[in-house]
Amino acid sequence: MKQFKAERVAVLGAGSWGATLAALLSKKGHEVSLWEFDPRAAEALSSTRKLPVLPELDIPAAIHVTNDLSSALRERSILISATPSHVVRVTMTSVWKTNSLDKKAIVINVAKGLEEKTLKRMSQVISEELHVPINRIASLSGPSHAEEVCRGLPTATVAAGIDKKTVARVQTLFENDFFRVYPHDDLIGVELGGTLKNIFAIACGISDGLGLGDNSRAAILTRGLNEMTRIGVKLGGNMLTFFGLTGMGDLFVTCMSPHSRNRLLGEKIGRGKTAAQALSEMTMVAEGMKAAPSAFALSQKLKLDCPLIQEIYKVLYKGKDPKTSLHDLMHRQTHKEWQGLRGNL
Amino acid sequence: MKQFKAERVAVLGAGSWGATLAALLSKKGHEVSLWEFDPRAAEALSSTRKLPVLPELDIPAAIHVTNDLSSALRERSILISATPSHVVRVTMTSVWKTNSLDKKAIVINVAKGLEEKTLKRMSQVISEELHVPINRIASLSGPSHAEEVCRGLPTATVAAGIDKKTVARVQTLFENDFFRVYPHDDLIGVELGGTLKNIFAIACGISDGLGLGDNSRAAILTRGLNEMTRIGVKLGGNMLTFFGLTGMGDLFVTCMSPHSRNRLLGEKIGRGKTAAQALSEMTMVAEGMKAAPSAFALSQKLKLDCPLIQEIYKVLYKGKDPKTSLHDLMHRQTHKEWQGLRGNL
Repeated sequence: MKQFKAERVAVLGAGSWGATLAALLSKKGHEVSLWEFDPRAAEALSSTRKLPVLPELDIPAAIHVTNDLSSALRERSILISATPSHVVRVTMTSVWKTNSLDKKAIVINVAKGLEEKTLKRMSQVISEELHVPINRIASLSGPSHAEEVCRGLPTATVAAGIDKKTVARVQTLFENDFFRVYPHDDLIGVELGGTLKNIFAIACGISDGLGLGDNSRAAILTRGLNEMTRIGVKLGGNMLTFFGLTGMGDLFVTCMSPHSRNRLLGEKIGRGKTAAQALSEMTMVAEGMKAAPSAFALSQKLKLDCPLIQEIYKVLYKGKDPKTSLHDLMHRQTHKEWQGLRGNL
Repeated sequence: MKQFKAERVAVLGAGSWGATLAALLSKKGHEVSLWEFDPRAAEALSSTRKLPVLPELDIPAAIHVTNDLSSALRERSILISATPSHVVRVTMTSVWKTNSLDKKAIVINVAKGLEEKTLKRMSQVISEELHVPINRIASLSGPSHAEEVCRGLPTATVAAGIDKKTVARVQTLFENDFFRVYPHDDLIGVELGGTLKNIFAIACGISDGLGLGDNSRAAILTRGLNEMTRIGVKLGGNMLTFFGLTGMGDLFVTCMSPHSRNRLLGEKIGRGKTAAQALSEMTMVAEGMKAAPSAFALSQKLKLDCPLIQEIYKVLYKGKDPKTSLHDLMHRQTHKEWQGLRGNL
C-alpha cells in the first residue's frame, strides 16, 4: 500500500454502509469514531462489535462507538455523513448545534437520495446546515454493496467534489488493495445518478414479475439511463458521469441484485399486487418509491419527455396496470435513440 | 399495427437468429425465403419446420426454405445477411456469382463480428463482395436473444445506416407489437459495439469463476464500456452509440445471460482451467475468443490504453493467471474516469 497520512474521522450513521466504511478506514490505520443515533443500538454495537443486518462484518475494537455526537466529533478533521438521506438535514442540524466540528473539517456524503420536498442533493443540504463551503464537501458513490466490501471483494467507486485537493484527500483516505476510488469533478451528476437509478430498479422488477426476459431488462436499463442522463444534463451534470461507475455501473448493480428492495417491490407489482399491497409486505422502505414522484415532478418542470419515469409513477401512484403501461411504451412513436442529447457532443 | 408495404425478403443463414427473424417477417405478412447452407439441414427444416437449437420456434409454412441460393434470391428486394460473421465474405461472393440479386436491393446485416485478419466490419465486407453502395446497407443490432424474440417478448433494437430512407425501410420492415426498432445513423459505432462486448462477457465470467461479486461485475461492465467507447470513437463511431442499446444494452445482456458462451468460457478459466482446457470442454465457439486479439491489436494500433482488453488477451493467449491480472488491474494508478474522452464533449 502507498504511504498515507492517518486521519481522524467521524462516521455518522452505523447502518450497514456507514459501519462497513468505518471498519475499512480503521483497518487501514485511521482513527475512527462511529456515531449511532439509537442509544441501545450504540451500546449493543459497542459491546458485541456486530451489526445485526450485516453479520459478516466485524467492527474493529479500535473504533470508538458512541451515541454522543460531541464525543464522536471531538478532534475530527473528516466527517462522513452516512445516515439515510431523509434524516441528513436533521442530523447535520444536530452536528451544528454541538459546536464541536473542526472549522476546517471536510465532509464526505455517502447517502444516495434527494431531499423529498426541496429536491436538493445531499451535498447541498449538508452545506446549508453545517455552514461548510461546497469546496470542502465530497460525495463517495458507485456500485458498492456493503455485503461485498466488508468481505474485501474488489470494488470501484468515485469521489466527487468541486475542489481537487478535497477529492484527492478522500481518495487517499479510502483506497486500499480491493477498494478503488476514481477522482471526479461532477458532484451534481454523481449525486443524481445515485438517486434516479432506484426508479429503474423498480421497473426491472415489474418486468421480471410480468415474466418478461433479458431483452426487456436491457431495454429498461438502456432507455432508463437515457432518461437519467437527459435530466442530469439539464440540471448541470456532465453527460459522461451517467455513463460511468455512478451512473450505468450503479444502475446495473441495483437492477440486478436479488437483494435490492426496489427490484423486489417491482416484482411484487408485476405479479399483480398493488403498490400499497406490495409495500405492506416489506419491512424496509424502497427508496425508489420516494424517488419516483420527485423524478416525475423534475421531468415535468424541466419539460423533458421521460416515458419510463412517467409510467412507473402512474403504476406506483395512480393504480395504472403495468400491462397497460407496457403496451403504451411499446406503441410510442420511435424516434432517434438520443433525441435531445446530440447537442452535447 | 401501422400500415406497411409487404416486402419480398431473402434471409441467408438459418441459424437461430436468421430463422427467428424470417418467422417474425413472415408472420407480419412479408414474403420470405430462407436459405440454409447445409442441404440436409435445409431439407429437414423444410419438412419439420423446426430448428433443433431453438425448439420453441415454429417456421411458418409460408416461408420458402431452400439450399439453392438463386432460388432464395429470386425477385427479392431485401437481402438479410444472417450467417456467422466469419463466413459472410464467402457467402456474399456466392451471392454475387449467382447474378440473381436485384440491382436495387437493400442488404441488412444482422451478424456481430469483425473479419479476423482485415478487422473490417460486416457492412464493409458485404459492400465489397456484393458491389452494393453503403447507402443501401444497414445493420440491425441490439440486445435481442432469439429465444425471447421467438416467444414474442418485448425487445428494443436499432437499425443503423448512412441513408435515412434505407433505415426507415428496415424499421418498417421489422416493427411489430413486441419488436421495436430505433433508427440510427452510426453504422460504425453500432457494428463495433456488437463485436467488442463479447470480450467483456469473458471477463465477467472470469470474475464469477474467481468468486467475486456484483461490485466487480459492475466495475468490469463500466470500465469495459469505457474501453469500447474510446476505441469506437477513435475509429469514427459516435460516443453516444456506445451508451445506447447496441453498446451498454447489448453488453449488459451478453454479460448477464446464463446461456452466454463467452461468459461460460470465462467462468471455467476463473475456476482454474487454462483457456485451452476450457475451450475443449465447449461444443460451440465463444466469439469473444476471436475478438480479444483483434481488439488488443486495435488498441495497440490506435495507441489507446485499454487495461481490461490487455489483461483478458494475456489470460486467454499468454497463460497469465487471472488472479495476477486482477491484482495488476487493482494496483494501476487511478486517473479520471473518462481520461481521454472529455474532448468529445
